[in-house]
Amino acid sequence: MDLSDKKKALRLLTYGLYVATARGSDNCAGGTISWLSQSSFSPPLIMAGIQRDSSLHQVIVESRAFTVHIVGKNQKELATSFFKGATARGDTLNGFRFESGVTGSPVLLDPPAWFECRVVEELRRGDHTVFVAEVVAAGVRREEEPLTLRDAGFAYGG
Amino acid sequence: MDLSDKKKALRLLTYGLYVATARGSDNCAGGTISWLSQSSFSPPLIMAGIQRDSSLHQVIVESRAFTVHIVGKNQKELATSFFKGATARGDTLNGFRFESGVTGSPVLLDPPAWFECRVVEELRRGDHTVFVAEVVAAGVRREEEPLTLRDAGFAYGG
Repeated sequence: MDLSDKKKALRLLTYGLYVATARGSDNCAGGTISWLSQSSFSPPLIMAGIQRDSSLHQVIVESRAFTVHIVGKNQKELATSFFKGATARGDTLNGFRFESGVTGSPVLLDPPAWFECRVVEELRRGDHTVFVAEVVAAGVRREEEPLTLRDAGFAYGG
Repeated sequence: MDLSDKKKALRLLTYGLYVATARGSDNCAGGTISWLSQSSFSPPLIMAGIQRDSSLHQVIVESRAFTVHIVGKNQKELATSFFKGATARGDTLNGFRFESGVTGSPVLLDPPAWFECRVVEELRRGDHTVFVAEVVAAGVRREEEPLTLRDAGFAYGG
């Protein structure tokens, strides 16, 4: 396999930018993710590829639940602030306010939309874990186009 | 859960448009898919949600391999022609010429880039199957921006 072609072809996949958050027994975790897609209409399932050596991964394995936030077109700084994880202070994560969702996961107030999900399968292959999770709560706060990974000028893949 | 919010939030996920093809013992199959993402850098894995009741699904379960083609910005008609599957005639699928890839899966000549993969996990949950597959071959034929589901004016999700 030509590794340069493999990298180029995989970088032509289209992704969004999302902030995922979860709550463990004694800490909250968060991170920016792109490897995410719906995987069933009924029941509503999503699949997410989460970096194995991240604190977000560790907390999701414990809590079996997480929130996915849509990053709005004008919220690039929200996405970049979660690149290296999340620091909780009071009712904020990286300075962004959150409430507790029905799964206990933090739900940020700023993103235009979000959904909470509960893990139903966990597949450890390669350097990320595939979590398949059922959407159990969702909210839309306002109309705003989502930010895509390509439009933000980033790449994750290859 | 507010089902309208659930649908709206899930439709804010960002997707590409891809044509997937596979070869069974006595037929080729193809289809347009969007629920696809990389799921590991090393080894290079992808995860794809494929509709359970499609001929594409049936053939992938048999062949354990498939090709994913990037649909170029100007190839909307390629994507729409595979919405309802693929009909093989000689060395064409829906009229688009193909060659045989290293996995035996058809590799179309028109898309700007493609990769072939072998299934390593198959997860049956909900109305689609999640195939996790290793990328084993890839090619880039020319520079062309990929077509996204949103830019094409379609939606798949919710």
